[in-house]
Amino acid sequence: MKLAELARVVGARLLGDGELEVTRVRAVQDAGAGDLGFADAPAELRAARSTNASALLLPEGFAAEHAHELPCTVLVSAQPARALAAAIEALYPAPPAPRGVDPSAVVHAGARLGIDVAIGPGAVVGKAVLGDRVQIGALAFVADGVIIGARTRIGPGALLLEGVRVGADALVGPGAVLGDDGFVFAPDDDEGRRANVPVRHVGGVLIDDGVALGANTCVDRGLLRDTHIGARARIDNLVQLGHDVEVGDDAVLVAQVGVAGYATIGPAAVVAGQAGVKERRRVGARARVGGQAGVVHDVPDGAAVAGTPTMPHLTWLRAMARLKDLDQLERRVRALEARLAAPRGE
Amino acid sequence: MKLAELARVVGARLLGDGELEVTRVRAVQDAGAGDLGFADAPAELRAARSTNASALLLPEGFAAEHAHELPCTVLVSAQPARALAAAIEALYPAPPAPRGVDPSAVVHAGARLGIDVAIGPGAVVGKAVLGDRVQIGALAFVADGVIIGARTRIGPGALLLEGVRVGADALVGPGAVLGDDGFVFAPDDDEGRRANVPVRHVGGVLIDDGVALGANTCVDRGLLRDTHIGARARIDNLVQLGHDVEVGDDAVLVAQVGVAGYATIGPAAVVAGQAGVKERRRVGARARVGGQAGVVHDVPDGAAVAGTPTMPHLTWLRAMARLKDLDQLERRVRALEARLAAPRGE
Amino acid sequence: MKLAELARVVGARLLGDGELEVTRVRAVQDAGAGDLGFADAPAELRAARSTNASALLLPEGFAAEHAHELPCTVLVSAQPARALAAAIEALYPAPPAPRGVDPSAVVHAGARLGIDVAIGPGAVVGKAVLGDRVQIGALAFVADGVIIGARTRIGPGALLLEGVRVGADALVGPGAVLGDDGFVFAPDDDEGRRANVPVRHVGGVLIDDGVALGANTCVDRGLLRDTHIGARARIDNLVQLGHDVEVGDDAVLVAQVGVAGYATIGPAAVVAGQAGVKERRRVGARARVGGQAGVVHDVPDGAAVAGTPTMPHLTWLRAMARLKDLDQLERRVRALEARLAAPRGE
Repeated sequence: MKLAELARVVGARLLGDGELEVTRVRAVQDAGAGDLGFADAPAELRAARSTNASALLLPEGFAAEHAHELPCTVLVSAQPARALAAAIEALYPAPPAPRGVDPSAVVHAGARLGIDVAIGPGAVVGKAVLGDRVQIGALAFVADGVIIGARTRIGPGALLLEGVRVGADALVGPGAVLGDDGFVFAPDDDEGRRANVPVRHVGGVLIDDGVALGANTCVDRGLLRDTHIGARARIDNLVQLGHDVEVGDDAVLVAQVGVAGYATIGPAAVVAGQAGVKERRRVGARARVGGQAGVVHDVPDGAAVAGTPTMPHLTWLRAMARLKDLDQLERRVRALEARLAAPRGE
Repeated sequence: MKLAELARVVGARLLGDGELEVTRVRAVQDAGAGDLGFADAPAELRAARSTNASALLLPEGFAAEHAHELPCTVLVSAQPARALAAAIEALYPAPPAPRGVDPSAVVHAGARLGIDVAIGPGAVVGKAVLGDRVQIGALAFVADGVIIGARTRIGPGALLLEGVRVGADALVGPGAVLGDDGFVFAPDDDEGRRANVPVRHVGGVLIDDGVALGANTCVDRGLLRDTHIGARARIDNLVQLGHDVEVGDDAVLVAQVGVAGYATIGPAAVVAGQAGVKERRRVGARARVGGQAGVVHDVPDGAAVAGTPTMPHLTWLRAMARLKDLDQLERRVRALEARLAAPRGE
Repeated sequence: MKLAELARVVGARLLGDGELEVTRVRAVQDAGAGDLGFADAPAELRAARSTNASALLLPEGFAAEHAHELPCTVLVSAQPARALAAAIEALYPAPPAPRGVDPSAVVHAGARLGIDVAIGPGAVVGKAVLGDRVQIGALAFVADGVIIGARTRIGPGALLLEGVRVGADALVGPGAVLGDDGFVFAPDDDEGRRANVPVRHVGGVLIDDGVALGANTCVDRGLLRDTHIGARARIDNLVQLGHDVEVGDDAVLVAQVGVAGYATIGPAAVVAGQAGVKERRRVGARARVGGQAGVVHDVPDGAAVAGTPTMPHLTWLRAMARLKDLDQLERRVRALEARLAAPRGE
């Protein structure tokens, strides 16, 4: 595609030769002739000056400072991530959407399929309701009573158990498990000594429009009401959402996060990789929880926290900066104690 | 169901109108007319006074204090969790157990099936032995030689490899993987410089009666003997149990826990979410390991520990209370050092 | 097999009666008559003296010291792990390799299969290329365009999406997910306030020869170029590898490790269980990252680090030794402050 056209399509300003053509997008360090190089992170931007790319897609700030140094045509964008996504769409035709129900799929006679639903090979669909243009991946399982909204894509091997309702324009990752009972047990004897009989859950899983759920991620059904994931929430791979969890609109949960039963993640909150949230705790709206953090008390709206137990992020950085010298700190205290124990005059 | 009957069924005392009918169970804050509201946690109990529920199911202690303040009939239970489970069973008829072998399932001619075994659509069962009333979920895989005890339910997409034996009345979660080789390697060259050829495992996986395993959880087979999970152990989602791990009866492993090869979890021990146990270590009987803890040395029977490396729980709480002020502590020490360095008289 | 023959096969020195026969390998504490007992770890070696095994396979050092005390024939190996693997191969005939394409498998007419390819029941294979003797497990999914090298084994239920290329002699664990899009989003509005539209990835996943990937592990495809796993890397269960991650030859990632997008693991590096690596960071060649560590800045080649954030391993051990006494340290400082505040002469 000619750069002039590409710039128009991705909403970028063109500095240089609009007649050049590019066919691929590459990270700036990998780009060569015929490529549009993309650079966003600081390390990549440093590599921009020596690129072999035919053109570069760069953020406004960097371009303003350095465009004159660069060896090629530049596309300048105020929103580089958005422009990159648009460049990918323009240069890499999306694979044709799968069509129709594969003959090897097992679809219940009572399943209600909208227009242009695609069901992949080996998939199993029960008496479920699939909206227009829903895609069910190979070997996925959709139980009786499941409802899936228009244009939602269920990845290969995903498992949607009874009680699951997914909105429109959502993505459920390969191998994800939605709707299994949560981790709730009751005693099986009169003295209540041991909680060890699973309690049957009667709530469901409600997933709003535009949600993205990652591969092998697990979302348990609610005990009495629904586990709920709000619109446009983005949840990465291998995440655990316990029964009755509430995830707000636009929240972000990075890989391997664990959210225990009844906990709440507020709208637009961000929980970084491998962090954990204790049961019944609330992470506030727009809060930011650091990687590997352990949330054991509520996190206020807008707060940035880190560590286990969580503390304000700055406090954590300072504490961690001192942690490696803790052994030395103890010796300093011991030295002070020794000096104060010495008789006067020595 | 009439409240008088419900109280009898769940073993609760009735205070109020036994002729009222309820049809559903709801958390107290969600409950309305026709609902039995359930309250157990402190926050929920506070909501009890303003509930719209037709009746409440409450624990003894709280009811004794507050029953007179409550606006509705009350069912009082000495074992609220058990009463809740019974109320769910009473008000929500269990879905009819699946029956028979789905035509789309692939079942080896040599498989031995007990009475009333159910095998779901797309499931694959090898020359295995399935006891009476075993249920195999859609798209699950049961390898040759696997033995499954009566009434055990294998979730959709679960993968039971060769060498796996599961007792009666167990639950294996959707997507769980049982019986894969553990993470053991041997050098492939004479100088032994690199351990990088997988060592074939010849042990199995032995799961006792009444065990519950969560979704996408992995249990590796033993290298020479079995990896063993004791009766009624309850293991949550996304847990990793390495080769040759021994989990005692009634133990509890919460989501995303990792137990390395040869480690032992004692009977009735509880390991909270995201904790890790180093290889060959033992967590004692009835021990309690905190969330995200890192067990690097044995935990005595009955001990409560937390942190990485683990320390007694109280010690950890105190240390963590001080951690956030570590930067300040260093400055206090520095101030003391400065004062002691000043000449006398200043 | 007679011990003399077994010693020859596993490359061990024989001390004792070569005519005895053994049929199984057992850990030393489990071994009885007719067994070869294996002992490598210190605890096991202590049990060697009282073993009931017909023979023991022991490492050089221990045997040199203690062989005279042992009650049975001893096989002495300079490489016990390797000898154990060879003993297993000798005494436990490998199950016959599966052959042929199961009638219940769904294989695209355009799939190219090498010699002696085995495809298990219920598996789905698209227009892919499978090398000689490749094994595809039951209910596994191999998408269009996937390339798999000779003798590679894909476990049951594994999901290989488009863009995945696997070398020869590799192992992909049951339930593993390769090739799903990474966790990359772009704003969907002009002010760029919210990053919440998934960006379509056009890179792939390149897995070199001899790699072992664990059960339920996830490897995301690259955004613009490949996510790459180098030769003979060994990756355990429930590991997350984000988009564009680079794992060097012979690297080891233990269970539940998480490596964020664009991060690099150097050749022969070892990352212990549940550790996390922040995006774009590099763990150097031959580095060792401790269990549960949080890598937030680059780890130099050959360095041993631990903790979150990571610090040199020795520093971490010392800091952690002091951590449990942090409360007491604060009180010691407070006592010093009190003494310095007292008027002179008291």
